[in-house]
Amino acid sequence: MNNFQFHNPTRIIFGKGTSDSIGEWTAKYGKTVLLVYGGGSIKSSGLYDRALTQLEAAGVKVHELAGIEPNPRLTTVKRGIELCRAQGVDFILAIGGGSVIDAAKAIAAGVPYKGDVWDFFTNQARIQEALPLGTVLTLAATGSEMNGNTVVSNWEEKLKRGAGSPLLNPVFSILDPVLTYSVPRNQTVYGSVDIMSHVFEQYFSLTPDTPLQERLCESILQTVIENVELALDNPEHYEARANLMWCGTMALNGGLISVGVRNDWASHGIEHEISAIYDIPHGGGLAVVFPNWMKYVHKERIDRFVQYAERVWGIKTEGKSQEEAALAGIQATREFFTRIGAEARLADFGIGSDQLERMAEEAVRYGPIGSFKVLAKDDVKAILELSL
Amino acid sequence: MNNFQFHNPTRIIFGKGTSDSIGEWTAKYGKTVLLVYGGGSIKSSGLYDRALTQLEAAGVKVHELAGIEPNPRLTTVKRGIELCRAQGVDFILAIGGGSVIDAAKAIAAGVPYKGDVWDFFTNQARIQEALPLGTVLTLAATGSEMNGNTVVSNWEEKLKRGAGSPLLNPVFSILDPVLTYSVPRNQTVYGSVDIMSHVFEQYFSLTPDTPLQERLCESILQTVIENVELALDNPEHYEARANLMWCGTMALNGGLISVGVRNDWASHGIEHEISAIYDIPHGGGLAVVFPNWMKYVHKERIDRFVQYAERVWGIKTEGKSQEEAALAGIQATREFFTRIGAEARLADFGIGSDQLERMAEEAVRYGPIGSFKVLAKDDVKAILELSL
Repeated sequence: MNNFQFHNPTRIIFGKGTSDSIGEWTAKYGKTVLLVYGGGSIKSSGLYDRALTQLEAAGVKVHELAGIEPNPRLTTVKRGIELCRAQGVDFILAIGGGSVIDAAKAIAAGVPYKGDVWDFFTNQARIQEALPLGTVLTLAATGSEMNGNTVVSNWEEKLKRGAGSPLLNPVFSILDPVLTYSVPRNQTVYGSVDIMSHVFEQYFSLTPDTPLQERLCESILQTVIENVELALDNPEHYEARANLMWCGTMALNGGLISVGVRNDWASHGIEHEISAIYDIPHGGGLAVVFPNWMKYVHKERIDRFVQYAERVWGIKTEGKSQEEAALAGIQATREFFTRIGAEARLADFGIGSDQLERMAEEAVRYGPIGSFKVLAKDDVKAILELSL
Repeated sequence: MNNFQFHNPTRIIFGKGTSDSIGEWTAKYGKTVLLVYGGGSIKSSGLYDRALTQLEAAGVKVHELAGIEPNPRLTTVKRGIELCRAQGVDFILAIGGGSVIDAAKAIAAGVPYKGDVWDFFTNQARIQEALPLGTVLTLAATGSEMNGNTVVSNWEEKLKRGAGSPLLNPVFSILDPVLTYSVPRNQTVYGSVDIMSHVFEQYFSLTPDTPLQERLCESILQTVIENVELALDNPEHYEARANLMWCGTMALNGGLISVGVRNDWASHGIEHEISAIYDIPHGGGLAVVFPNWMKYVHKERIDRFVQYAERVWGIKTEGKSQEEAALAGIQATREFFTRIGAEARLADFGIGSDQLERMAEEAVRYGPIGSFKVLAKDDVKAILELSL
């Protein structure tokens, strides 16, 4: 186990009916609020009206930034920053999934910053101040509701980049699983792939002697695997929705499940390059890339892949070589993603080989990526080729 | 899963050498500090001198409260409160195990309170203000380093009671596993029993549909079981000490592993009555009581005990009745505690039946205890009789 610091002050308010406390919690922190949300789903579900009623009753003044994109765009973030400055906003309330929350975080960091907010995403500047923010989560996926990370797309330059700071941890996040009843089938699938992928990035590591962290990772993977199909078969299955939601948060809340463990994050880097160009759903891209990353890197520490096959998928390893056991676990991953309805190949998104070179190049723009196996441009290209 | 709130702002600074940052972290929060510690072990290990040197270098003024008892006493807490008031202390630094930290918390709550600090332990008053505190942990056991709970003994009245508030969460806790190299063998044993017992209190629950929480509990139990003997055989086994230390914190950091799960805590209540009268080590008392509590209550939800036998102890349940499987898991617990050197019977502490009635009565002083099975006075007495 490596040395680590862990600090996560986000307050979680979890459970059925907690979305009735949006006004109450917001009023504890803000008087003039920017309400950030995405498309029309919070309007059609009635959540928008409920939130506004509560905020008004709590005496909070509300300005709005609607239309956050699934891969939130820098231009939208900048509009939010201007709005906050013009209106004297003192708190940001994000209602939505990871994209909406990420946009809200980028706005929170940008408001007090004199330069271009994109500086934070290109390692030109560090976040040293931010508006406080709160969230109401409507999709189990990114964990953004309990960490300080944000990912934004610069559509003009076809770049998708991350930034982060403890200052961007939401002060509160309201997690009402009922709000996810209306999440479309494919978003439930992609969200679940995203959760599992976050765990993979932390689980496949070369750091020795981390038994608790490994088991925590396996706990989340097993729970997601057990619950996705329950939620797909019956979208109003409260317990399945609640379990997925809490798994999503636990999978990426400041690295709790992987403290002292060197993480990888190469697959996310590769996927970001795909969706930066093709604007495909993040979870869809991950479902394509991850099993191929696994195939490409598994020999680096095959015992971890054997453990994964055994403990997560219950694969009997007796009589199998390590290689056979490892590949069986990878195959089980691929089959599970396919069974729940995620894409298996880039071709399923209509993506061919013409931009492979560029994606590989961009993925290593700041140097090789990953740590389980350090990937140079050719490695990334090879994984993308496996994914075609 | 039940609704829940989770909020744990304690910052963890974990790893080899982190005890070199005591001065630096303390100076961020306090100018005039009360240093709280126990017996001579931090002096003989050199930690005391190192801490004082660091605090002086950091420009912190230090007052001391030494001699915190293993079951910290109200009289000592009151001395600490007076000292803080007289010296204008603005921060409390606890260096030690759970008892030292618990005493520091009680002092932190008592300083700004006009009444008797014991009021907080008898439900006469609620903690509404507290001095901030930090900790340097020297024993893997109670989890007090990352929660807001404290347990204090009123020796005159032979009462041991708990109190708690989010205000008592340490602002930082330094966890350097190297500091636990010198922990005596029996304290390593009792600390490990304590960690496992904390998990039991959260794992044996009637709350349905909590798969992630159950897996997290099992993860900690398995990791403790794998590491205790490594640490006993080789007290300077860094990884074993690190794993035990992190398990201790994760087992009781504000209920993270059991959010949305109704906890039990009856066994702790029973043990508190034993050690209130006989001043035995908390972990020793728990090692005696818990397997007997398990025997007494397991029929309430036998499937949880079967799952425990299977997942934690790897007991093959095929061909066994549920009752046989459950009892095999309980037996494995008993045997493990005995194998690592914990006591199995009250008689091992020289405790007979003469105070059983009184202990049973005190345990239910504020009403029946537990939730897995709600225990009245006669139930408590029966468990104590099984423990003789």
